Amino acid sequence: MEKELIFGHQNPDTDAIGTAIAYSYLQNKLGYNTEAVALGEVNDETAFALQKFGFEAPRVIKTAANEVDKVMLVDHNEPQQSVADIDQVTVTHVVDHHRIMNFNTSLPLFYLAAPVGCTSTIMWRLYQHYGVDVPQNIAGIMLSAIISDTLLLKSPTTTDEDKEAVTALAKIADVDYEKYGLEELKAGTNIVSKSEEELIDLDAKSFDLNGKKARVAQINVVDLPEALERKEAFLTAMNEAAKDEGYDLFMLLITNVLDSNSTALVIGSDNAKAAFEKAFGQVKDSEISLPGVVSRKKQVIPPLTEAFNS
Amino acid sequence: MEKELIFGHQNPDTDAIGTAIAYSYLQNKLGYNTEAVALGEVNDETAFALQKFGFEAPRVIKTAANEVDKVMLVDHNEPQQSVADIDQVTVTHVVDHHRIMNFNTSLPLFYLAAPVGCTSTIMWRLYQHYGVDVPQNIAGIMLSAIISDTLLLKSPTTTDEDKEAVTALAKIADVDYEKYGLEELKAGTNIVSKSEEELIDLDAKSFDLNGKKARVAQINVVDLPEALERKEAFLTAMNEAAKDEGYDLFMLLITNVLDSNSTALVIGSDNAKAAFEKAFGQVKDSEISLPGVVSRKKQVIPPLTEAFNS
Repeated sequence: MEKELIFGHQNPDTDAIGTAIAYSYLQNKLGYNTEAVALGEVNDETAFALQKFGFEAPRVIKTAANEVDKVMLVDHNEPQQSVADIDQVTVTHVVDHHRIMNFNTSLPLFYLAAPVGCTSTIMWRLYQHYGVDVPQNIAGIMLSAIISDTLLLKSPTTTDEDKEAVTALAKIADVDYEKYGLEELKAGTNIVSKSEEELIDLDAKSFDLNGKKARVAQINVVDLPEALERKEAFLTAMNEAAKDEGYDLFMLLITNVLDSNSTALVIGSDNAKAAFEKAFGQVKDSEISLPGVVSRKKQVIPPLTEAFNS
Repeated sequence: MEKELIFGHQNPDTDAIGTAIAYSYLQNKLGYNTEAVALGEVNDETAFALQKFGFEAPRVIKTAANEVDKVMLVDHNEPQQSVADIDQVTVTHVVDHHRIMNFNTSLPLFYLAAPVGCTSTIMWRLYQHYGVDVPQNIAGIMLSAIISDTLLLKSPTTTDEDKEAVTALAKIADVDYEKYGLEELKAGTNIVSKSEEELIDLDAKSFDLNGKKARVAQINVVDLPEALERKEAFLTAMNEAAKDEGYDLFMLLITNVLDSNSTALVIGSDNAKAAFEKAFGQVKDSEISLPGVVSRKKQVIPPLTEAFNS
């Protein structure tokens, strides 16, 4: 069978990496010939999870069409979050948990999305649907993905299905998910060793908001005030990225994974900032406190989309 | 629970109607509060199937937002094939078997599509996935949908999954699917009692082909030469519709359901006709023979899309 690549979004997180690995295993069991790859280097949290369950980081690709004609996407569908030459290949499968935006195909395909906290929760259901046993290490990396995306089941994106999947996968992986989950999340909060330029790109996604180009980055920390000591340097890096890439808005969401509160840094054009303030309230000195906001997908993008459309 | 409407595409066929009925039954069993409705009157074939299995035709709606905030779509996703005010409601669920085009949401949703011959085949899998028994009449209407979309499993869109679903559903519905299927298809071929204006709108869909507006209609017959005796009247009706609605291309696919061959009538702008001929070959006197072409989705839209994009 003709080989296909499976990958998650750019600036991969543990869901993008872990679910690609899990989907590749499942699809190969079902008769496909696939390889899980990545659209960037893994972050510290994902590296911790991969090592814990005995995986190498997937090979990083820049383009796909030089290798294959067909690809499968996990944890994303928007073209600007995908591989650079996504328009040169045919997408045959998508498994995702995001809104659908600017995703157009000329042929019917397999597409499964559900409004749950993590793509790996859907993947767990797919394994059950096809009656394929989940190996211990695959269970471990799917569990890690759900812990990551739901901040240990505390994010408002968390659904009962995510909780059921965590319970089931933790059993197969043979780990205490609360103890392991805190270790995993903490592994992703070491910002001291990284530059501001790296940090604003680590978990960043671009969005088309009614024709405006918005960049929303998120970093996880255990000490918000410590992170905000670097505020001026963050703003400088964000302004430079906005100038270089033509972002109308750049938002950096700094989230405390221990208490699920965030502070955001925001820069952009006057119009874009006005739309932002319509969604979230007044920004002072490029900063705004967002208590309880931890989910870019559920708590940031929908109000921003609405504000930019009105 | 807040009520949601479920419907298939405009100019509904047996899949659009039957799968909406089947999905509404399933979702209500799962705790939703839904009603299956239709975006137009049912055609002769669908009326035959509904009567056979004891259903009334679903209520026809023109708009949705005056009744509900949320809707579920079956057998389509493209906005121009949906309810007129689709942009005024939130789509929470989609079950479909077509390409994805211009379908954008601001929120994550449930979306299940697969490249199979009929949406009811996917619906049959969903029933199994959720462990919900299929009642005899629901099995009958799903069976009718698959027979309709796959021309009794003869269309090139037919997959092994469609065949398995037909076998299983025929057993539950307690009918000989080959005998019943031929009766059902023949019930949809009575074109004598209809005007050309009605016939070119009965099973017609609009497509955005690289910015050009294309209309592709299909009628099923048992006698092609007899249908082509009305060629001039068809062309007049197509030209008028194109003028009124601004279609760059209007294609009428006349399909013999007994031998799975078609003849197409084609009108449109010079550019659009040139793109059409790039896809299908020379059109003579607005007519072209298309042996073996029975599937708009698999054999018409993909080559047209490619021709218009190049």
